[in-house]
Amino acid sequence: MRILGIDPGYATIGYGIIEYDNFHFKTVAYGAITTSPDKLFPDRLCDIYSDMQTLINNYKPDCLSIEKLYFNTNTTTAIDVAQARGVILLSARKSNVDIYEYTPLQVKQSITGYGRAEKHQVMEMVKTLLQLNSVPKPDDTADALALAICHGHCSGCLYNKFKGVK
Amino acid sequence: MRILGIDPGYATIGYGIIEYDNFHFKTVAYGAITTSPDKLFPDRLCDIYSDMQTLINNYKPDCLSIEKLYFNTNTTTAIDVAQARGVILLSARKSNVDIYEYTPLQVKQSITGYGRAEKHQVMEMVKTLLQLNSVPKPDDTADALALAICHGHCSGCLYNKFKGVK
Repeated sequence: MRILGIDPGYATIGYGIIEYDNFHFKTVAYGAITTSPDKLFPDRLCDIYSDMQTLINNYKPDCLSIEKLYFNTNTTTAIDVAQARGVILLSARKSNVDIYEYTPLQVKQSITGYGRAEKHQVMEMVKTLLQLNSVPKPDDTADALALAICHGHCSGCLYNKFKGVK
Repeated sequence: MRILGIDPGYATIGYGIIEYDNFHFKTVAYGAITTSPDKLFPDRLCDIYSDMQTLINNYKPDCLSIEKLYFNTNTTTAIDVAQARGVILLSARKSNVDIYEYTPLQVKQSITGYGRAEKHQVMEMVKTLLQLNSVPKPDDTADALALAICHGHCSGCLYNKFKGVK
């Protein structure tokens, strides 16, 4: 199963693509989609949509694993992350990619076995599990790989499949 | 100038299309895009995108006037409205429709002359200004027409043009 992990954002969107087969991982590609702060926000959304389509067309993932959003503060940033995430969900769904979402706690738990693990512990486990020479940069990319691994670990558990809003 | 007003949402998205010419308004079409609560959320986003494209292709608006979002509460609903709004902005921008956004206060002020006007006063003014027989239903549709009128009134004021996130 080929999993695309995405750490949502509007300036930097981390992505990581892995092959998962019965607890074995193979790293396919990772990096970050970035958008220019000099562009109007709707144009940045167009860039995200276009780059997501390129990523999906190039790597043909079976599913998308994306972080669930929680807002604790009323900030413009949070609204814009959600707007960009809507565009990311659209781009995956229009390409018939199944979508799963996980909370940061679920990601930490599935990777380190402990929901309150420190960020650097998660990063080190990503490096170890994927047999990388160093922790991928930026953090958004490492987070995206962590989301992909999390979905690999949880892939038997269908309860995380996106249920939408009822 | 043909203006498409949109009241953003994910279950019901009000729309109103008007022709504006030197303080004269002509109503072209209005209604609401609705999505089924039985569908997964990403599929509802696909429906919104598709219906927005149909609307834009059919009526060829010059610009989109859309409500600016402010979240005061940390709710899933607010996140999902923002995700849908991202898809709405994308659909307009991909069709080269210019995007303007207004706060509820700006809309009330431009229509009734008073930023703290009651909702029913705004609705009545929409009916009067557009020479309709009754206030359009649902409220989302009337709100969308109000946004379109607001942009007509403010169209000389370029300061409202979407500036994006710097």
